[in-house]
Amino acid sequence: MKRQIFDELENLYDEMIDIRRWLHMYPELSFQEVNTAKFIADFQRDLGLDVKTNVGGNGVVATLRGGKPGKNVAIRADFDALPIIEENDVPYKSKYEGVMHACGHDAHTAIALGMSKAFSSIKEELEGNIIFIHQHAEEQDPGGAASMVEAGALEGVDVIFATHMENYIPVGHIWHNDQYVLGSSDDFVIEIKGAGGHAAFPQDSADVIAIGSQLISNLQQIISRKVDPLKPAVLTVGSFHAGEKGNVIPNSARLEATVRTFDEDVRTQIHDLVNQITENTCKSYGADYHLDYQFGYPATKNDKSTNQLMVNAAKDVLPEENIIEMEPNMGAEDFSYFLQKTPGTYFFTGSANEEKGLVYPYHHPKFDIDEMALLNGAKVLSSSVIDYWKKHN
Amino acid sequence: MKRQIFDELENLYDEMIDIRRWLHMYPELSFQEVNTAKFIADFQRDLGLDVKTNVGGNGVVATLRGGKPGKNVAIRADFDALPIIEENDVPYKSKYEGVMHACGHDAHTAIALGMSKAFSSIKEELEGNIIFIHQHAEEQDPGGAASMVEAGALEGVDVIFATHMENYIPVGHIWHNDQYVLGSSDDFVIEIKGAGGHAAFPQDSADVIAIGSQLISNLQQIISRKVDPLKPAVLTVGSFHAGEKGNVIPNSARLEATVRTFDEDVRTQIHDLVNQITENTCKSYGADYHLDYQFGYPATKNDKSTNQLMVNAAKDVLPEENIIEMEPNMGAEDFSYFLQKTPGTYFFTGSANEEKGLVYPYHHPKFDIDEMALLNGAKVLSSSVIDYWKKHN
Amino acid sequence: MKRQIFDELENLYDEMIDIRRWLHMYPELSFQEVNTAKFIADFQRDLGLDVKTNVGGNGVVATLRGGKPGKNVAIRADFDALPIIEENDVPYKSKYEGVMHACGHDAHTAIALGMSKAFSSIKEELEGNIIFIHQHAEEQDPGGAASMVEAGALEGVDVIFATHMENYIPVGHIWHNDQYVLGSSDDFVIEIKGAGGHAAFPQDSADVIAIGSQLISNLQQIISRKVDPLKPAVLTVGSFHAGEKGNVIPNSARLEATVRTFDEDVRTQIHDLVNQITENTCKSYGADYHLDYQFGYPATKNDKSTNQLMVNAAKDVLPEENIIEMEPNMGAEDFSYFLQKTPGTYFFTGSANEEKGLVYPYHHPKFDIDEMALLNGAKVLSSSVIDYWKKHN
Amino acid sequence: MKRQIFDELENLYDEMIDIRRWLHMYPELSFQEVNTAKFIADFQRDLGLDVKTNVGGNGVVATLRGGKPGKNVAIRADFDALPIIEENDVPYKSKYEGVMHACGHDAHTAIALGMSKAFSSIKEELEGNIIFIHQHAEEQDPGGAASMVEAGALEGVDVIFATHMENYIPVGHIWHNDQYVLGSSDDFVIEIKGAGGHAAFPQDSADVIAIGSQLISNLQQIISRKVDPLKPAVLTVGSFHAGEKGNVIPNSARLEATVRTFDEDVRTQIHDLVNQITENTCKSYGADYHLDYQFGYPATKNDKSTNQLMVNAAKDVLPEENIIEMEPNMGAEDFSYFLQKTPGTYFFTGSANEEKGLVYPYHHPKFDIDEMALLNGAKVLSSSVIDYWKKHN
Repeated sequence: MKRQIFDELENLYDEMIDIRRWLHMYPELSFQEVNTAKFIADFQRDLGLDVKTNVGGNGVVATLRGGKPGKNVAIRADFDALPIIEENDVPYKSKYEGVMHACGHDAHTAIALGMSKAFSSIKEELEGNIIFIHQHAEEQDPGGAASMVEAGALEGVDVIFATHMENYIPVGHIWHNDQYVLGSSDDFVIEIKGAGGHAAFPQDSADVIAIGSQLISNLQQIISRKVDPLKPAVLTVGSFHAGEKGNVIPNSARLEATVRTFDEDVRTQIHDLVNQITENTCKSYGADYHLDYQFGYPATKNDKSTNQLMVNAAKDVLPEENIIEMEPNMGAEDFSYFLQKTPGTYFFTGSANEEKGLVYPYHHPKFDIDEMALLNGAKVLSSSVIDYWKKHN
Repeated sequence: MKRQIFDELENLYDEMIDIRRWLHMYPELSFQEVNTAKFIADFQRDLGLDVKTNVGGNGVVATLRGGKPGKNVAIRADFDALPIIEENDVPYKSKYEGVMHACGHDAHTAIALGMSKAFSSIKEELEGNIIFIHQHAEEQDPGGAASMVEAGALEGVDVIFATHMENYIPVGHIWHNDQYVLGSSDDFVIEIKGAGGHAAFPQDSADVIAIGSQLISNLQQIISRKVDPLKPAVLTVGSFHAGEKGNVIPNSARLEATVRTFDEDVRTQIHDLVNQITENTCKSYGADYHLDYQFGYPATKNDKSTNQLMVNAAKDVLPEENIIEMEPNMGAEDFSYFLQKTPGTYFFTGSANEEKGLVYPYHHPKFDIDEMALLNGAKVLSSSVIDYWKKHN
Repeated sequence: MKRQIFDELENLYDEMIDIRRWLHMYPELSFQEVNTAKFIADFQRDLGLDVKTNVGGNGVVATLRGGKPGKNVAIRADFDALPIIEENDVPYKSKYEGVMHACGHDAHTAIALGMSKAFSSIKEELEGNIIFIHQHAEEQDPGGAASMVEAGALEGVDVIFATHMENYIPVGHIWHNDQYVLGSSDDFVIEIKGAGGHAAFPQDSADVIAIGSQLISNLQQIISRKVDPLKPAVLTVGSFHAGEKGNVIPNSARLEATVRTFDEDVRTQIHDLVNQITENTCKSYGADYHLDYQFGYPATKNDKSTNQLMVNAAKDVLPEENIIEMEPNMGAEDFSYFLQKTPGTYFFTGSANEEKGLVYPYHHPKFDIDEMALLNGAKVLSSSVIDYWKKHN
Repeated sequence: MKRQIFDELENLYDEMIDIRRWLHMYPELSFQEVNTAKFIADFQRDLGLDVKTNVGGNGVVATLRGGKPGKNVAIRADFDALPIIEENDVPYKSKYEGVMHACGHDAHTAIALGMSKAFSSIKEELEGNIIFIHQHAEEQDPGGAASMVEAGALEGVDVIFATHMENYIPVGHIWHNDQYVLGSSDDFVIEIKGAGGHAAFPQDSADVIAIGSQLISNLQQIISRKVDPLKPAVLTVGSFHAGEKGNVIPNSARLEATVRTFDEDVRTQIHDLVNQITENTCKSYGADYHLDYQFGYPATKNDKSTNQLMVNAAKDVLPEENIIEMEPNMGAEDFSYFLQKTPGTYFFTGSANEEKGLVYPYHHPKFDIDEMALLNGAKVLSSSVIDYWKKHN
């Protein structure tokens, strides 16, 4: 069956390219992907799948029922775009100025739809079902994944797979990890408030700049002294603004920061310590503060045995040496919410091609992919689906 | 002679009020005081004084030559206004929206012109000369004083006196000090530059916010650890700006700061240490920086014996208990440049009147004075001139 | 009468030298000055004074009653020595190894006893009384002054004078100040306590060294940001001890610090802020602490008019140019407790003589004085006593 | 052959216990293990091995030549003891008060000697050689491993295995890792030097306590800001000493610290940054310093395929679920020097037994093991040797 599907996907390669390019030309921002959702739903319905729309927002869930009973395998593909002005000079350049598929979600969707068509062609032989989870709004907190889960997208699902385009590796390779692939991402904003005043009379003010400076140094000690050194964590204050001129002490300072880590306990620990240190640093000098701490996406943690299954399945697609164990990456993605509920794995499909100049990372205005990644991604995912049925049915 | 001058000044009181109010209605910003200068020059010329205009800018120097030989006593009065929208509802309110004599320079000039008229009336009896130094541009760095000194305004001058309106004390009082009345004021701007980058990869950046924060803490140690504790000094960072959002490490941070002190050696010491600490703090983490350190006005330091002479002379004008030794004040004023060249004294003439609501400090849009301060100021200065001649001729 | 006393003191000069040298040879440590007290009491009793012993400890109060009614003027002289091994090679070298009059208290006592004998000689003519307050234990906190005050040493006293040897100025000069001559001196010890542990697992410890380090930086901001810059203040952490080796996180750190300032409000403010900052810095990282803050001697603040009276009285003894206004000094002395209750003044009597090699500062093992300071000190104090009676009776 | 060896080891179990206990009773400190070395050399010589003594110190290398040609497999066992007073009440308690095999090296040696006897019994059948590397001085820097390598102990060796007793897991389990098992351990001492002085005159001193405090905060930023967050690293200042009392600024401060990490580049990076930050922090305030940075043992990094081979070999000895992948541990060990030259693996053999109270960690005065660990360790190592020959010959 695997051979059959691979052949089918090869036949569908041009169509996948067409789909990806069409999506690329008509991108839609997170939470506004109405036409994209409609396009997907129509496509899947035309193939005969059972389609639910408006799942937790603009999400679409399409179920391909196999002819025989078996496990429910989900494939997740996200479909929103970014507020970036495309700088590529290609025939399929975005037609919506300022909106761009600069993160490969067009490709992810094309892969899913290609797979749907390929598997539909031998529907009766399938010993299980494939649930295509087309997720909206991956790019913007709070994301679409959590609300799709809440709306039941994972009901009955036994395992879930997803892939993401990756220009840090050449097309023909994949990156994977048995455990963490991406980090959690939380943000906080601190507003320090105190009496302002004349620069020459600091005794009448709470110098919010001096306090903010100490706070920034103090917060770093969370990472260097309080978190288990074996558990990676980063706390970066990326923005600090206070005051208008040198000779006036301002009455407020604003800090914006981000926290990245993997472990859920570490997330909680950092949250608690940011609160504790901010409170006490401000109290030290009689300043007030307002702290707004927003938990974002949790870490994306693969299920080890599912990942191993995918790695083995990938060997039927790519040379073994091109299947590379990656270091976890501190970016974040809301596929993590699916993995919190269901075993699964998320891997990166190489899409770079140096000779063709396809080397810009995602979120870059010149991001583009070697489209052979569509076929590779579809094959690895399909191979995994088939192996999963083989092993678990 | 003193009695005679006091009587004359009392007769001139209404005219001094008129002058002050006319100036108040037609204020001019620093370095733009062309009409004010012309008004002053005309007034002094009409009285028969020897008038030099455009002295170091818009400055005016008018010499009243006494009938007998003796010492040259200078009276300094500044005449520029501020970019403030007046909020007083008075008949003599500024006619130039956004420009206001909110620092009493109108009063200072009225006092000088009143004195000129009073002393002119007994010109032949005077045993010395009075040089009226009408200074432009006190409010704005680099000020008019330094350039007037350079242009020769102090040539032949033996001693110099000046007074300033002060709403922190009631009319009928003066504030003085044998030594420092006002501080020096220097400013600096530091631009820290480093590689920016993604918040999750701090190892690839020089985190200019973390470095700037440490720098701010480090700079405070100049005051607490390096400056002689008996020599007052303040270093305030009043502005710190870096970054646009929490999850990106910016590539530059900008600090603006002011330094106030009295002692010239301490000024130099702080300048040197700001350089040393900035350089080494940035080097610690591999960041670059640009430091722009601007020396402003030096401290205003009275000559003790001249001040004592003024204090004694004031006893002929005000009750002894109203002549109050003040704490030095960390504001700054460019009268300091005159005092660096010539013995002299600078004191504050009380101009507040709580019952009349005249309580707003200078630079406030509702600043106004009890005009009796004109008479008091003129009398104390005149008494000082006469005593000086008596003692030093 | 002044002439008469001066002559008498000149006659007594040799005897004062003998007394001083005898005391120098038999020094006694603070709170152990039994024989010195006995020597003084005997001497005063022999002169016919009314002597109280064991006043607040080893203190002696001797009252010389004048023949006529008048004000009660106190002269304070301290008489304890220091735990220093004398390095002078003089006939009157300390006979008690490790105990030394290295702070001139032998001289202060000789002055007082010389004055007592001089004034006793014309006792009947005196229009008031002189109370000699011989104070024990000046060198060691809590000092003898506070307990002598409590024991009634100042009862009925109208004014108090004291002088101190000073090798920073040549014999024949005095240093004085209308206000502060010496600072307050407070001490504190902070013990930071937290879980210790292995250096490689900081997450299991509260790193008391890191916390202590931050605390030290934080405490400096009291001086640079919270105290009025016009009010001198110093906070020095002079000792920091924690840990035994690099690879173990210790469970406690100990800091010892001293605070020097002049103003009582600033003392309280610093005390409060040390508490606040220590508490909150420790709380930031979950450490405990014990803070022991000991207020020591307050600042020594002269009464202005008494000091002016002394300055005028000194002009009958020394050339006017040798009577020098001094900067306040951040050393401390418990004469301050007398000045908190009674108007008075404290000044320094020059005792250096470069030609004779008498240049070592007090507390130095080679400290010694030009004994002409005995006569100068006695004359200035006596002149002050007489002028005080003249003015105030 | 494996079965045969396992049986032989079971027969030798009692003898291994006897050897271990004898060694336990006569422990010798690092670099002083003369008798232990002699005991080992005699034992191996008696079995007919080719023995070299004094290899890089007290090291012993014994070669068991198999009857047939094949790969050279090394087994490393360390044999020095610790300066600890044993607190166990057992018949085989250390007879040398203050010296104790508290780290299981007695067991490691007993395992090696047991294996030697077992394999010797079927010597002719062996398709390769076993090189027993008996290493002295593991416990004390610079350790014996580096000098044994230098003396040629690894000549001809194709692979190396070692195990260590571990009371954090029950007997019957092993802990392993494909990559890092133990960290690198480097130490540094910083002496900060500056002018000392009176606490009230900080301007005359370089306050080494304030500078040291800032330095400690600054050094933490290496971990939180400069090292790749995915690469674990710890820098702990475990000792800070300066000053004798609160009111004197001392002229030197001493810090001792340790650095633990895994990656060699990170080691170098931290070393360079400690230098850079120390230099510039001291320069900021005009202090001098002396920095002594000692690189200790590198990280112990297994060869992945050798470790996988051992894991598979262990399945013939222990239930699969007892073969546990461990987190890397930030302790350090000089087996790392062997692994820098030769592929190999190092794993922990569980030796705890809660029921018998055998739960104290190594370096504890009550450390003792369940001796069944001798047999388990010997079997896993032997199984690995045999599998290695099978795979690589």
